[in-house]
Amino acid sequence: MRRKSLSGAACPIARTLDVVGDWWSLLIVRDCLRGMRRFSEFQKSLDVSKNILTQRLRALVAQDILTQAPAADGSAYQEYTLTEKGRGLYPIIVALGQWGRQNLAGDEPNPMTLVDREYRQPVRPIEIRAHDGRVLGPGETVMTRLG
Amino acid sequence: MRRKSLSGAACPIARTLDVVGDWWSLLIVRDCLRGMRRFSEFQKSLDVSKNILTQRLRALVAQDILTQAPAADGSAYQEYTLTEKGRGLYPIIVALGQWGRQNLAGDEPNPMTLVDREYRQPVRPIEIRAHDGRVLGPGETVMTRLG
Repeated sequence: MRRKSLSGAACPIARTLDVVGDWWSLLIVRDCLRGMRRFSEFQKSLDVSKNILTQRLRALVAQDILTQAPAADGSAYQEYTLTEKGRGLYPIIVALGQWGRQNLAGDEPNPMTLVDREYRQPVRPIEIRAHDGRVLGPGETVMTRLG
Repeated sequence: MRRKSLSGAACPIARTLDVVGDWWSLLIVRDCLRGMRRFSEFQKSLDVSKNILTQRLRALVAQDILTQAPAADGSAYQEYTLTEKGRGLYPIIVALGQWGRQNLAGDEPNPMTLVDREYRQPVRPIEIRAHDGRVLGPGETVMTRLG
């Protein structure tokens, strides 16, 4: 399916999907958030061809979501790490995981859950809050231009 | 690029991307959250071919994200509305929008912003919170199986 570019779209949701709106990119970001840094780790995790992985990593570096640098241990490996912009994708990844856990759990008796590393308790469901802290539902927000 | 199915993946992020991990599906959901209900409205908003739109709407109905029913006004039109499962995608859409606004704003002087419908104030940035309310960063959470 041919994609048209949405990089100039007025809507920031569309612009984001233009950059990370494919399956591989967000799974690579997920793996980086888990601490993975090397090509071979991503390849094993994602079960993806070298060609596609190379192409997606290059695109993520070009978008300033990942940086690429020689491994800190002095070996010949390259390591990929999230930039601040890349780490900013964390709420998107968490939101995707919470929806999947709630809606696509299937019949797994003990599904994967996102927990607080320290206390091993599940994190709270994401809520959208107004400036004054009220929880807002889908009908209570609107996209607009201010000022 | 051929996609393999991740519907049986252990990771709920991967399962979610298997269902909504394409550009069109989430933009259709965005438009439904904005109040759009009809094929012609989606087509105008997304500038997409009838074939692709038909196919994406059918997939979203099959996944129980949208329901399809004759229009309430008694006309011959069909209307698509979000199910509860579909409305659950709201935090994902908001997270995509916030990241885009912060990172891909470009040089637009007055970008689109998600505001509280009542007070017209921007909503708060999404935060990930522990069971006890602490804000958690990417390094402070981990995916695991409990129990």
